[in-house]
Amino acid sequence: MLDTLIWKDATEAQRRRALARPVETGTADAAAREIVDAVRARGDEAVRAYAARLDGHAPDDFRVLAEALREARKGMDPADIEAVKAAADAVRRFHVRQGYSGYSVETWPGVMASRRATPVDVAALYVPAGSAPLVSTLIMLAVPAQLAGVPRIVVVAPPAGEGGVNPALLATAEILGIDEVYAIGGAQAIAALATGAAGLPRADKIFGPGNAYVAAAKSYVAGLPGGPAIDLPAGPSEVMVIADDRADAELVASDLLSQAEHDPSAQVVLVCFDSATRDRVIAATEAQLAQLPRAEIARAALASSCTVICDTLEEAAEVANVYAPEHLILQADAAERLVGLVRHAGSIFVGAFTPEAAGDYAAGPNHTLPTSGAARAYGGVTVEAFQKTTTILRATAEGAAAMAPAVERLAALEGLEAHATAMRLRRERAGAQPGVAAAGGPRAGTKRRKTAETDVTVTVNLDRDGPSRIATGVGYFDHMLEQVARHGGIALDVAVEGDLHIDAHHTIEDVCLTFGEALREALRDKRGLARFGFELPMDETRAAVWIDLSGRPFAKFEGEIPGETVGEFPVEMTAHAFRSIAESLGAAIHVKVEGENAHHMVEACFKAFGRALRKAVRVEGDALPSTKGMLA
Amino acid sequence: MLDTLIWKDATEAQRRRALARPVETGTADAAAREIVDAVRARGDEAVRAYAARLDGHAPDDFRVLAEALREARKGMDPADIEAVKAAADAVRRFHVRQGYSGYSVETWPGVMASRRATPVDVAALYVPAGSAPLVSTLIMLAVPAQLAGVPRIVVVAPPAGEGGVNPALLATAEILGIDEVYAIGGAQAIAALATGAAGLPRADKIFGPGNAYVAAAKSYVAGLPGGPAIDLPAGPSEVMVIADDRADAELVASDLLSQAEHDPSAQVVLVCFDSATRDRVIAATEAQLAQLPRAEIARAALASSCTVICDTLEEAAEVANVYAPEHLILQADAAERLVGLVRHAGSIFVGAFTPEAAGDYAAGPNHTLPTSGAARAYGGVTVEAFQKTTTILRATAEGAAAMAPAVERLAALEGLEAHATAMRLRRERAGAQPGVAAAGGPRAGTKRRKTAETDVTVTVNLDRDGPSRIATGVGYFDHMLEQVARHGGIALDVAVEGDLHIDAHHTIEDVCLTFGEALREALRDKRGLARFGFELPMDETRAAVWIDLSGRPFAKFEGEIPGETVGEFPVEMTAHAFRSIAESLGAAIHVKVEGENAHHMVEACFKAFGRALRKAVRVEGDALPSTKGMLA
Repeated sequence: MLDTLIWKDATEAQRRRALARPVETGTADAAAREIVDAVRARGDEAVRAYAARLDGHAPDDFRVLAEALREARKGMDPADIEAVKAAADAVRRFHVRQGYSGYSVETWPGVMASRRATPVDVAALYVPAGSAPLVSTLIMLAVPAQLAGVPRIVVVAPPAGEGGVNPALLATAEILGIDEVYAIGGAQAIAALATGAAGLPRADKIFGPGNAYVAAAKSYVAGLPGGPAIDLPAGPSEVMVIADDRADAELVASDLLSQAEHDPSAQVVLVCFDSATRDRVIAATEAQLAQLPRAEIARAALASSCTVICDTLEEAAEVANVYAPEHLILQADAAERLVGLVRHAGSIFVGAFTPEAAGDYAAGPNHTLPTSGAARAYGGVTVEAFQKTTTILRATAEGAAAMAPAVERLAALEGLEAHATAMRLRRERAGAQPGVAAAGGPRAGTKRRKTAETDVTVTVNLDRDGPSRIATGVGYFDHMLEQVARHGGIALDVAVEGDLHIDAHHTIEDVCLTFGEALREALRDKRGLARFGFELPMDETRAAVWIDLSGRPFAKFEGEIPGETVGEFPVEMTAHAFRSIAESLGAAIHVKVEGENAHHMVEACFKAFGRALRKAVRVEGDALPSTKGMLA
Repeated sequence: MLDTLIWKDATEAQRRRALARPVETGTADAAAREIVDAVRARGDEAVRAYAARLDGHAPDDFRVLAEALREARKGMDPADIEAVKAAADAVRRFHVRQGYSGYSVETWPGVMASRRATPVDVAALYVPAGSAPLVSTLIMLAVPAQLAGVPRIVVVAPPAGEGGVNPALLATAEILGIDEVYAIGGAQAIAALATGAAGLPRADKIFGPGNAYVAAAKSYVAGLPGGPAIDLPAGPSEVMVIADDRADAELVASDLLSQAEHDPSAQVVLVCFDSATRDRVIAATEAQLAQLPRAEIARAALASSCTVICDTLEEAAEVANVYAPEHLILQADAAERLVGLVRHAGSIFVGAFTPEAAGDYAAGPNHTLPTSGAARAYGGVTVEAFQKTTTILRATAEGAAAMAPAVERLAALEGLEAHATAMRLRRERAGAQPGVAAAGGPRAGTKRRKTAETDVTVTVNLDRDGPSRIATGVGYFDHMLEQVARHGGIALDVAVEGDLHIDAHHTIEDVCLTFGEALREALRDKRGLARFGFELPMDETRAAVWIDLSGRPFAKFEGEIPGETVGEFPVEMTAHAFRSIAESLGAAIHVKVEGENAHHMVEACFKAFGRALRKAVRVEGDALPSTKGMLA
């Protein structure tokens, strides 16, 4: 159980092998294709034939009667009803904050570009009910579908019992207000949904887990021309637990087992920092296995699982990033540092009191998550997954004229003459010449400043905490702007072509001026509201910055920074940078710095500026540290 | 050219046939699979063999030299450089507002659930350069990738010329700050990216259009276990133009042709309301065709395209919804009504001055859009497409104890004993019993109110302008709550099980009380800030509502509504509804209504309440009509 790999001693190939997922055989793939193709060719008759053969259930109408739903609910233990409602409530509380944002931006003067989110018309939720009725899966899929406003939510589940479908599932559907349930499972259910056969509606998107046949059928129909979308590529469920030597072995074992009991092909990876921890966890796992009804399944899963022993937190994070686990459990004193180091995981469970089981059922976040390393590119199911966006463009005559030169030029470059003509005809009818690009939305701004010396583009988003892309050509200055972005809690994009063959002066000055302008654009409704200051120590240095977004430019710099340059950054540009920002932003900026080390002193000024800015742009105080503005 | 279908006279089969997309032959599919499978089996050698055979270009290193990028830029016409920059600026202005929101919600007391968005590590952008170098495609893919913060952006393009790749593409890459470009195209490029072969990195997600082989390869690798994600299913480009009898035929024709010139398989659908309009458009199309360099291609595309003649706007919208076009151009006086009626379209272009060509190049929205009806379930490429979300869960001992009863109950219901054990062990260590669910985030709230008479759950999201799901069992009351949601610009979910067999009283009262509570929860940082009023006429009726979010309940109702009920809604409940809301929200609500018709008077009160609420919850004034709060 849990073969061990010492990460730093292992070769690349050994690492890959240890973390490899089981490869599917392809049998299910061929069978699923055959079923889907039969349904595409023969429709209802093929659906019924496969349903009869594979499920022994092929009624005239697969739909579960309303009466059966009501009966199932009446028959459910009231305590179970409460548990279902409590879980649905928590899932609703978490998901209600999701959904694509709609907004409008004037991208050119006279050109209004908008984004609108709408739900899919028909969402199908596949709920397995083989070894167990997955009540929790129905909750996890139905709640975000309802929050997205999907007008038609359809549930399919393998046939069982008198009502057509497992009564716990029917009762849950009834509690959630879903009345369209079909008693059909397997690849034939997916085929019927993809084509709209045998009384099932044609689904726009199919959600939910299932066995290998269901997964293969979903993947196949999603690739067909005009086929439905699907939520996620499927694979066996998996967990990675990172445990340090202070972790409670009994808790770690319980988490490994709650993964292993799912399926013999479930994946379990234990990452720890010494063999003693591994041994304690294995002993605890053996002890709990003895009590477990599904011990056989769990043992099979554990047989193909492994332990990785790391030297450092960074190594452990690397293992997680390479593996990109569906579930990542952190039982380590440095759990919060690991949260920051891990880039790829479906869901992260932090600390001893946060078992994966809580997330599987009732904590709030979705339990339908990317497996098999898909977390590198996919997240779990969200409200957004039930929506799609449409962009809407509205141009006036002035707007058409403004865009025309760029459009006609690019159309010619691509050799698409009719495109150029379509634009030219509008320009001629507008009878106007292009103007200057207009401002973006209220909480984000882009400004370009072009002179004989530099060409600077700065984009600021006050409502996104990074990531930033900064490339001024002056390394230390990039570092300073990164401080402003990070400590300001904003996203900053800076691209410059500057006359650096002369010196850094123009580049720094013009970036600061453009940054101020972009910030002013982003802030425009907030100006005049905020006066904020921040003071911070940095080794021997202490710097303080106060900002008044008054609309009037004023800059004051107190302090003497020794030396001439830090990297390529001229020290004298520190005061000048804040003066430039104050000027173009229209703000009073006071900077005061004491210290000895120039590197520290310059950096402390920019950091304190970022912190003061963070407060200033989040005017509602700590209880609401960020606001995201949007036009209707 | 443009065979005509009269929508209302056509059978279902005729409609389907007229709007059917061309079916791919499957040849490309088999060839693409063969190439991908060869590269999976034989790696670098297979990539080079196919590149040599298909492109005649198989160097040791496919990567384009930095020198070639710089040279290409130096060689570009300065006016083209400006056009590229202007287009990128507009695309940046539009996309900067996108990106998944991160947030935290306390889903249970002691359970903090968060969502975090991170970029993919490696994004590959496939840029075709067959008949034309698609400079615009590079802009449309690179800018959102950069805004998402993707650390490694890789461009692949078919080989051409001395530098390895078409110089206009190289120059554009250089302008955009992208330095990793590979001169390789076709299915072999996709195979190399999917596996990380021949010096190309393994891509986490592959974006961009391409020929049938590229599309087939993308679709195939996306379905492989552990395969990369892709942006969108591919199909020929398409446009639908809805034109009324006042549309400018020359402009309509130019739009049809700028689609038709793309590709012989491009799809063009004209929807109009009479045959005279069709005839005018066809004549103008013929006239412009005579001047068009790519007339042959356009003629081929038009040969398989069609005109649909509709009687009403609703019919035209239905045609659009059935077809779900990639591009939808509205040249009709009632264009804005159509925008509201159309649910499925990649991008909508409104009015005479908004050609598709503008959106293809420089208007701001993305031009990489869903084709072949995929707009029913997919939107175009967004910043979100370059990100994925991770959920993060942190529970305290109290939190574990709070969730435990629901989790253990549901685990037992599903027969997963180890899950129940993992939760039970935490509950025992916490030594506590469950509490009551805590409040959600600052701008959204969910409350459940359960008495012997009713069980009401209300969810309010102040930052989402619908959709709402309201089902109280009292039709007219649903209608009133929909007014509040729509005019309030909020999303409202109301689910009730009430004692309607007695009457509507308890249901209405308890829904109002719960609504007030949920609203109070959603508003909590804003209380005390806002005093707003709104007055509106509705035929003979005039209603006014003033709200003071003071924290103190007070209700005043002036007016006499005639009669006893509207539908099942007792008229006397109007005043009572606002009193209940005032009580649980903690607000002063004054309502004044004059009129004659009870239906109008009740409805006007709720509408005015919605409008006043819209102002009250958007405290920053009209310039920033919506704020979205989030915890870090």
